[in-house]
Amino acid sequence: MKIRGYHTDRFGHVNHARYVEFLEEGRWIYFEENLLMSPFHEAGIAHVVANLNINYRRPAVVGDILRVETDIMSVGEKSVVMLQEIFKDEGRILVLDASVTDVFIDAKTDKVIPVDDRLLNIWPDLQEKVHP
Amino acid sequence: MKIRGYHTDRFGHVNHARYVEFLEEGRWIYFEENLLMSPFHEAGIAHVVANLNINYRRPAVVGDILRVETDIMSVGEKSVVMLQEIFKDEGRILVLDASVTDVFIDAKTDKVIPVDDRLLNIWPDLQEKVHP
Amino acid sequence: MKIRGYHTDRFGHVNHARYVEFLEEGRWIYFEENLLMSPFHEAGIAHVVANLNINYRRPAVVGDILRVETDIMSVGEKSVVMLQEIFKDEGRILVLDASVTDVFIDAKTDKVIPVDDRLLNIWPDLQEKVHP
Amino acid sequence: MKIRGYHTDRFGHVNHARYVEFLEEGRWIYFEENLLMSPFHEAGIAHVVANLNINYRRPAVVGDILRVETDIMSVGEKSVVMLQEIFKDEGRILVLDASVTDVFIDAKTDKVIPVDDRLLNIWPDLQEKVHP
Repeated sequence: MKIRGYHTDRFGHVNHARYVEFLEEGRWIYFEENLLMSPFHEAGIAHVVANLNINYRRPAVVGDILRVETDIMSVGEKSVVMLQEIFKDEGRILVLDASVTDVFIDAKTDKVIPVDDRLLNIWPDLQEKVHP
Repeated sequence: MKIRGYHTDRFGHVNHARYVEFLEEGRWIYFEENLLMSPFHEAGIAHVVANLNINYRRPAVVGDILRVETDIMSVGEKSVVMLQEIFKDEGRILVLDASVTDVFIDAKTDKVIPVDDRLLNIWPDLQEKVHP
Repeated sequence: MKIRGYHTDRFGHVNHARYVEFLEEGRWIYFEENLLMSPFHEAGIAHVVANLNINYRRPAVVGDILRVETDIMSVGEKSVVMLQEIFKDEGRILVLDASVTDVFIDAKTDKVIPVDDRLLNIWPDLQEKVHP
Repeated sequence: MKIRGYHTDRFGHVNHARYVEFLEEGRWIYFEENLLMSPFHEAGIAHVVANLNINYRRPAVVGDILRVETDIMSVGEKSVVMLQEIFKDEGRILVLDASVTDVFIDAKTDKVIPVDDRLLNIWPDLQEKVHP
């Protein structure tokens, strides 16, 4: 995505809230590319962000082209932590890195779902990050 | 409301989309002050913006304190036009003025509702602006 | 652009302020595609939005893919009016149309610049819409 | 601040990026109430957010009235960590808590400034949180 004037504040920097939208966009794209949207929906599983931890490294300015990379960082008993990095200058400069902790919720009962076989079947890439 | 750095773009001006939020905030406050929220909700009437027409007069910058004024401009057969003005410097400088055309919808049938007695009873101030 | 959850309000509709950002994005793209950014910058000419007039036709919801079309609508002595339309469903459904009035400013003196030869040389497509 | 429809997503919850704006608003208010704005500006000291760590506890919905509390959490050699909490229901329900790490920059040289006497004189409340 390309940075426009309306993304930036009066110092010409992309503001903090806007990055949170870029990270959310990155997670949507990850879910789409990994074909997770429909299976989660059909299984009646929602997920919510429980923690968002962002390290702002370098400012992004108008004209910068940002790339968001999203991957699984670790898998706990009741949560999955995603690692997200935003780069500019064709990946040479790290703008920020973030960890995002997702918790899964049964859409009917509103109860937290553990990261068990049901989830691993939908999202097989979790398997390799599960702590043994 | 007081303008902060995160409201402004790289020229230090409040950006166009943010004003649209300020106008929306002004309409919520108008509806609250005129005790319209509950009656509309109970009557199953929703309203949607059909047209938004904004004249940007002067920029607002960090530190400015803005006041939004909202009033009925005119009443048509199927719509109500609100006039909204945003001032700064204690009302001495007009930042923008806008007309916002609202249309009323039956929340059950999704059909447009004419501006008739049912609406005028809920919102008596409409009466004096109805074209004879 | 694809509509995400964070673009929408509690009725599942894209909210009014967000569309204003989409329109702004559309104008940036128009300026880039027509190679207007550098010439304007080099000539020391800025442009500001004096009026924004949006007709909201149909709501857009999560999953919709929107296309913004931007073109010159008319050229006045001191302003240019752009027509912008946002479509969904591969152009079959009009979500909104808007007219955006741009005024040109000398970046040094902050004075309004008339739409004269200097502007027409930079932006030749204006020529055919100039009122005779 | 009162939650409006335009603050929320299609589940009726305030979205993640919006909270980041609320936190920023809370820090501006803290700086104003502690009379820090002018002294920082006069001393040519800017501050930037290096880390933002948010625990989302409970959702906020339309009609909720939120209160943001901001305080110093800890003071390091080159950074200050602020604790921010957002409450609803008159302080009975914690919506989120966040730690925000601020780093100070010399506005002329763009270099990081240590948390030394110059800073402590401007912001005396830091004193009691300095690690001995």
